[in-house]
Amino acid sequence: MSALTAQVRAFIDAVVIPVEDESDGDVAAAGGEELRLSLQASARQEGIFAPHAPTAYGGLGLGMVERAPVFEAAGRSLFGPMALNINAPDEGNVHLLDQIATEAQRARYLEPLARGSVRSAFAMTEPPPGAGSDPSALQTSAETVPGGWVINGRKKFITGADGAGFLIVMARTAAGATMFLMAADRPGIRLVRHVTTMDKSMLGGHCELSLEDVRVGPDDVLGADGEGFRYAQVRLGPARMTHVMRWLGAAQRAHEAAVAYAASRSAWGKPLASLGMAEQMIADNEIDLAATRALLMTACRALDEGKPAREETSLAKVFGAEALDRVADRAMQLCGGAGVSTDLPVARIAREIRPFRIYDGPSEVHRMSLARRAVRRYGAD
Amino acid sequence: MSALTAQVRAFIDAVVIPVEDESDGDVAAAGGEELRLSLQASARQEGIFAPHAPTAYGGLGLGMVERAPVFEAAGRSLFGPMALNINAPDEGNVHLLDQIATEAQRARYLEPLARGSVRSAFAMTEPPPGAGSDPSALQTSAETVPGGWVINGRKKFITGADGAGFLIVMARTAAGATMFLMAADRPGIRLVRHVTTMDKSMLGGHCELSLEDVRVGPDDVLGADGEGFRYAQVRLGPARMTHVMRWLGAAQRAHEAAVAYAASRSAWGKPLASLGMAEQMIADNEIDLAATRALLMTACRALDEGKPAREETSLAKVFGAEALDRVADRAMQLCGGAGVSTDLPVARIAREIRPFRIYDGPSEVHRMSLARRAVRRYGAD
Amino acid sequence: MSALTAQVRAFIDAVVIPVEDESDGDVAAAGGEELRLSLQASARQEGIFAPHAPTAYGGLGLGMVERAPVFEAAGRSLFGPMALNINAPDEGNVHLLDQIATEAQRARYLEPLARGSVRSAFAMTEPPPGAGSDPSALQTSAETVPGGWVINGRKKFITGADGAGFLIVMARTAAGATMFLMAADRPGIRLVRHVTTMDKSMLGGHCELSLEDVRVGPDDVLGADGEGFRYAQVRLGPARMTHVMRWLGAAQRAHEAAVAYAASRSAWGKPLASLGMAEQMIADNEIDLAATRALLMTACRALDEGKPAREETSLAKVFGAEALDRVADRAMQLCGGAGVSTDLPVARIAREIRPFRIYDGPSEVHRMSLARRAVRRYGAD
Amino acid sequence: MSALTAQVRAFIDAVVIPVEDESDGDVAAAGGEELRLSLQASARQEGIFAPHAPTAYGGLGLGMVERAPVFEAAGRSLFGPMALNINAPDEGNVHLLDQIATEAQRARYLEPLARGSVRSAFAMTEPPPGAGSDPSALQTSAETVPGGWVINGRKKFITGADGAGFLIVMARTAAGATMFLMAADRPGIRLVRHVTTMDKSMLGGHCELSLEDVRVGPDDVLGADGEGFRYAQVRLGPARMTHVMRWLGAAQRAHEAAVAYAASRSAWGKPLASLGMAEQMIADNEIDLAATRALLMTACRALDEGKPAREETSLAKVFGAEALDRVADRAMQLCGGAGVSTDLPVARIAREIRPFRIYDGPSEVHRMSLARRAVRRYGAD
Repeated sequence: MSALTAQVRAFIDAVVIPVEDESDGDVAAAGGEELRLSLQASARQEGIFAPHAPTAYGGLGLGMVERAPVFEAAGRSLFGPMALNINAPDEGNVHLLDQIATEAQRARYLEPLARGSVRSAFAMTEPPPGAGSDPSALQTSAETVPGGWVINGRKKFITGADGAGFLIVMARTAAGATMFLMAADRPGIRLVRHVTTMDKSMLGGHCELSLEDVRVGPDDVLGADGEGFRYAQVRLGPARMTHVMRWLGAAQRAHEAAVAYAASRSAWGKPLASLGMAEQMIADNEIDLAATRALLMTACRALDEGKPAREETSLAKVFGAEALDRVADRAMQLCGGAGVSTDLPVARIAREIRPFRIYDGPSEVHRMSLARRAVRRYGAD
Repeated sequence: MSALTAQVRAFIDAVVIPVEDESDGDVAAAGGEELRLSLQASARQEGIFAPHAPTAYGGLGLGMVERAPVFEAAGRSLFGPMALNINAPDEGNVHLLDQIATEAQRARYLEPLARGSVRSAFAMTEPPPGAGSDPSALQTSAETVPGGWVINGRKKFITGADGAGFLIVMARTAAGATMFLMAADRPGIRLVRHVTTMDKSMLGGHCELSLEDVRVGPDDVLGADGEGFRYAQVRLGPARMTHVMRWLGAAQRAHEAAVAYAASRSAWGKPLASLGMAEQMIADNEIDLAATRALLMTACRALDEGKPAREETSLAKVFGAEALDRVADRAMQLCGGAGVSTDLPVARIAREIRPFRIYDGPSEVHRMSLARRAVRRYGAD
Repeated sequence: MSALTAQVRAFIDAVVIPVEDESDGDVAAAGGEELRLSLQASARQEGIFAPHAPTAYGGLGLGMVERAPVFEAAGRSLFGPMALNINAPDEGNVHLLDQIATEAQRARYLEPLARGSVRSAFAMTEPPPGAGSDPSALQTSAETVPGGWVINGRKKFITGADGAGFLIVMARTAAGATMFLMAADRPGIRLVRHVTTMDKSMLGGHCELSLEDVRVGPDDVLGADGEGFRYAQVRLGPARMTHVMRWLGAAQRAHEAAVAYAASRSAWGKPLASLGMAEQMIADNEIDLAATRALLMTACRALDEGKPAREETSLAKVFGAEALDRVADRAMQLCGGAGVSTDLPVARIAREIRPFRIYDGPSEVHRMSLARRAVRRYGAD
Repeated sequence: MSALTAQVRAFIDAVVIPVEDESDGDVAAAGGEELRLSLQASARQEGIFAPHAPTAYGGLGLGMVERAPVFEAAGRSLFGPMALNINAPDEGNVHLLDQIATEAQRARYLEPLARGSVRSAFAMTEPPPGAGSDPSALQTSAETVPGGWVINGRKKFITGADGAGFLIVMARTAAGATMFLMAADRPGIRLVRHVTTMDKSMLGGHCELSLEDVRVGPDDVLGADGEGFRYAQVRLGPARMTHVMRWLGAAQRAHEAAVAYAASRSAWGKPLASLGMAEQMIADNEIDLAATRALLMTACRALDEGKPAREETSLAKVFGAEALDRVADRAMQLCGGAGVSTDLPVARIAREIRPFRIYDGPSEVHRMSLARRAVRRYGAD
């Protein structure tokens, strides 16, 4: 374990986990924005803040391979990524802006985001029949008007939107799908509601937004007009991998808590953890965690080499989301009644991880892509 | 579908589900005891109250096979079993008292319970290192004193204890494990805390109780001194099957909601429900529901024939608990983001069903028993 | 266990299993047609021959529910169904002919088949791009000519065709799919080859046939012209269930052999069968066997009530084929090295059961049908 | 793909696969020892012989990471590893001898083995109640006599023993478990029988040997007296990984064959490979293959760094054996009837891979070790 990883691990144990345990991982109940500011101040003091962000903006500038153990250590607590400013969607937005934003946009949006002064949201998905699993169904429109565009549409499942300082909005222009940057309080943007979900740890929730006649100009375009889907891929590859890193940390913690519990309890005169069926669950967790880590690192190496790594990131995401869900489920089962209670962190972690099989591309969509690529490779003859 | 089943189904749809939907299945938030009284009054008016209870006490006197579709229809709502007075642990306690209680005990405990005037709890399980998966670890003691016994011990995961009118307490006497009946307010009984769990629909919660010098006399013994474990089996066989019936109803509803959702949404230009991977999930749900029902009915027929049916009830419980959990999980997955939100009932049902793989005997304990019987049958030669 | 079942069980143990064990279940190596005649003579003497066939033809006339335990007992040996004349495809053909054949056809085809004087084949499936998983792709044509039809086409995976006395051939006429009865030596019918498969116990193998200008007349039509697909369903429902019965017997035997083996061996100072992971495999086998039996009996009851039972038979077939394959696989694993050797019957049984997930409708096709029916039921709103 | 890997791949396709296809992978039917000599001569000519062996003995001296793609390419054919002289148990024995043998032993055993002049066997496992899953149950004894030891015992599942030039025999001396080297024709060594197993591609089969009063002297000890179990670990770590490499190649070939088949067939008017349930199987294969490769490479890197890597090799072995078995099973299912026939290589590959979940440590034993290590790590508090 590197010194940085060890430091993050110690910080999470000492500072973050107590807050999470007390609130059962409900970020709003634990203090919301106020909690974020306080935890981030502590992380900054520790020198572990924003390990992913450019050093120019106070970050540690780590590559993907370097990030993995650090993000995993942070992910041990549901509030850990927020504390280090590496939570979704901000972390992915930092990456995207760093790749594509103009100097002016960097100053206005990227720097404050990297420094934790504001939060952000990435407004791509829409309610049916709009862009969901199938992004090409994008319905939010940006109609050309003198001096720019007028955006109309509805967005759904926009993580972190409530309280975000700015949004990246995907809309359809004459040129194709295009990303726009805008302050969250720009006229015409309205928070319709929070979509209440089983997970409770994401600050700003998962929101439904309406955009009515929102005016944007050329300076608000992120990158080039019509290149939105391509940029989404630039963002998604690494963003999926950092998701896996964070949930890997949470699942690893659930596993450790379950093993410790099972080792300390007896049944039929033996430690619970020594019974064969318990050993099977423990071993299966070890296997799922190791395989997730191995696929993740394979993808990170490819990304660090500058490859798009669509295959590798898809493999790590789909396997990881399902494997970590299994890990959390077995951890619950290992602990019996305590496993489904708030006496241990495992039920809470299970609740937070489950949606990852759907968020960021459902497993079924990743499988479809993987299969089609395989058919192209092997089906020719 | 029998007329009774159809009537229950219509009642659940019209009267119970709206209350559940509004409160996301949190019984305390929905009104608690007050809600119980109001729903039970409605069910009584409908003539569908207490289908399991003896007709002498206003019930419908149904056998196990007859009960199955009725309980399943009630289980479609998380609050349905409470409305019909067939929720755990009351329903199993009615059965147990009807088999074993004296006339005086019937009058004092059974009749008001069957009529819904009071609730009850079954206080068997204990915190570690006491009776949990391994009931023989029972530690609560009933020491002989002049005129009876003094009970001391701690009970955990006692469903419905908060607000119960009386308890059935398992304790160890000189003769062995023994069941005692007692009013919940008998001196020395203390509600230590609610164990907060992921499920929210059980009125009275899952409680930790302490018993300190609780005095009981010969009239408080349920059945014979020392026969407690045997009676626990009398209770558990049918009680496990009615659990399966109720959760079958809930899982069936989640499945139907998911199929309806998937049939109404499109992706890549087709109904989501017509995509092959969605069809696979739908079919797997159909298979799991049908297999659970088939094993359940096999066990119910054996119970109605007066057999102990330990093998049959274990098979139906362990398969059912796991299969229905899979059904709810696939239902969530089929619905994408909506599936993990409160917009549909599926996440809520998944949350309530999951603990059934642990409650009433974890899957691992049932498997251990099944395996040992198989070894006795086939391992001899 | 009924007297008949016990008698069949004893016959299989004493007479059939020794032959199977010696030849590792390879019916050709064990004697082929000669073995069939000899085993059937023994079964006839025992009074257990043809339990499914009409009593008028020397059978026992059992309904589906009655058949289940008898067929399961026969299925314990891979050669048992052949001994009792209840093997596929003959058993299904007896059923079909009994439902649909004319008096003349009964005398010529049904009676000798029921009595075991001849074998038969059911020639429906074709090589790609013909009728396979999708029967509607039927390509074999029956062109109208004066006095009847001329059939041309190719059939594949025609079980038992080599050595069969007659065939039931599905071909496309002007009226639709039609079944024709014909002696196997009718001019124009040619055995192209045996498709060599992993299973070795089916007498007559799985054959590829070519039909070139085969002349048939009105008397050769089985039932009505154009009704072939409907009759195929009449045949398939029960035929699938008897497949499940037979493979249930084989899987049950593999399970029993594995439990006996694991109970007799030690590892780490304990019987192998008492280790937790072994108990898990044993219990999972018990569960899979019981659930298969429960779904099977549900379907059999529906068939005995005269229902088409397409849903029930599909559920039992798809679950059963996969569950029994899992049972055989776990049985192998339980026995370690011996499990994959010919020292025990388990590897042999696993090899024979595996193709059942494909034969008689692959699992995927059954799942597609189940899903579509569910969408019709629940997707309306 | 490196030039060497490409060269191996081309050689396997052109020279080896045709022989395998013709014999359905039965090495004895394909020519046995004669085939080995002929294929190895061809490989030597190609310059691809013995990629693992020390260069001093004509090998290519590759490390574990370098080996992985080369062995995988060889493993595409069941006879490929034999052709390159990298089959079990010879390949592992080369590694073991290279680590531990004396100069004299190197000259007498290692060099001819590395050059393909002889084959070898590793005689550790025994029939019950001897060393099997639990090596510590070792019963073969080496009694001290003047000038050495006399070995008595029985060995089972000794791969390649029939036709081997020499054996490495594990026996129990006063000092503990010890390895002895001996020519296969040393007096007292007897081939009892071939254990007939479902796999057919290992030259020399899986044999049962008896050792009666076999005389050995100090020069026959491999390494130090009493260090046998430690050396077994030295051998097993890399040997398990090269097993995974070889089976990965076979499973990859089955997968490619299945995808090609499914892409070339139609059902319901579409390519079979484009149906959702087929895509799911294809994607699951891609995931299982990628995860196996990722865990394998993690273990290989650790081994190349000189670590014992017991955890990493156990993880890769247990996951790989199960994942590759799933891959082969799905490949069969994808191809329908053709999948279980000899028309395609998939059933053959499935048959060969299945025992790997048992050989080289059953999955259950690896899980037990993994669980116990996890308990030691996390169960302390």
